[in-house]
Amino acid sequence: MPFNRPGILFVMTGASGVGKDTIRQAALPSIDELFFSVSATTRPRRPGEVHGKQYFFYEKAAFERLLAEDALLEHAEYVDDFYGTPAAPVKEALAGGRDVLLELELVGAREVKRRVPEAVMIFIAPPSLSELERRLRGRGTDSESRIQKRLARAREEIRAVKEFGYVVVNDTLPTAVRDFCSIIYAERARTALLSRRDIANFLREL
Amino acid sequence: MPFNRPGILFVMTGASGVGKDTIRQAALPSIDELFFSVSATTRPRRPGEVHGKQYFFYEKAAFERLLAEDALLEHAEYVDDFYGTPAAPVKEALAGGRDVLLELELVGAREVKRRVPEAVMIFIAPPSLSELERRLRGRGTDSESRIQKRLARAREEIRAVKEFGYVVVNDTLPTAVRDFCSIIYAERARTALLSRRDIANFLREL
Repeated sequence: MPFNRPGILFVMTGASGVGKDTIRQAALPSIDELFFSVSATTRPRRPGEVHGKQYFFYEKAAFERLLAEDALLEHAEYVDDFYGTPAAPVKEALAGGRDVLLELELVGAREVKRRVPEAVMIFIAPPSLSELERRLRGRGTDSESRIQKRLARAREEIRAVKEFGYVVVNDTLPTAVRDFCSIIYAERARTALLSRRDIANFLREL
Repeated sequence: MPFNRPGILFVMTGASGVGKDTIRQAALPSIDELFFSVSATTRPRRPGEVHGKQYFFYEKAAFERLLAEDALLEHAEYVDDFYGTPAAPVKEALAGGRDVLLELELVGAREVKRRVPEAVMIFIAPPSLSELERRLRGRGTDSESRIQKRLARAREEIRAVKEFGYVVVNDTLPTAVRDFCSIIYAERARTALLSRRDIANFLREL
């Protein structure tokens, strides 16, 4: 690749149960040089989840210390739990020319967009709300009242889709993964990332 | 896919010998629903080329009749030959919601961009100018003076890369094809293509 370019910040969001994690886990191995930023949260750890992998799991008091130290790029409360993005690793990666992917709730995504307007925003949508409901029930991790809360939230969030540059509809997983990877590769191919120096260097070579 | 959207016009350009045809031919079978618009030209047919497949091949007089009838979306002269895009099939496809791909010389690409500002512009770049020279010689279809003419033109064209939204560097073919396909799929995933009605329809379904 003859051109250098700065790191790109990608932000993905979407309702609970829409398949964000599944898409990300299927996509990441086939995308080179994309640094996934692990979020901090106070929500209870689910079976199989590992501290530092799916999330950094914190008690509320510890999370509040992170906030007080201004060590989070964004944070949000969602269904009575806190979520946040440790700022330092993201800033370091971008400054070093590495691309970063954040997976955030809508409120957090908006906060990042406000702070980093050039961030590339990706909204993961269900093929339909009834399909989302089916998936939430199938997951079997939530009470009925929490499912209703999540569905109401999802309905509200879909209204925000136009705040995002891209929408990936998770109808079938292979298509969703293809579209997700495509957004990463296409954004890397934008000429807006080229500097005049890149082009001058390229032409000087003859 | 819950959303309808209008057809997208994709325009690819790049220097002779950079591999536009090869990338396109490798990419098209894996992209569903992309209509490739065959150009008209007065340049001599090369061995194996078929009228209506690589190009519509016309004598100069016949090409000038197309111009007089305003039947071309753009046209350009390049190394003493004319190239042009029949307008009717492109307009019909876009109006019917189908995506269209044009492969054009720089002058023609600029003309389309002027007439259709929302067209998605893709520049195919060689990994280096010396590699482009090697490929032009390897092709064995051009005289030395024509090779020099093409290289000088390529050098000028690369200065225009920022007029295009995307640049695909044809270093290795699989990577170039991946990036090319990614641009098509990512553009199809843009929320800018969603209407308020699309979102309302989606929410009404519950």
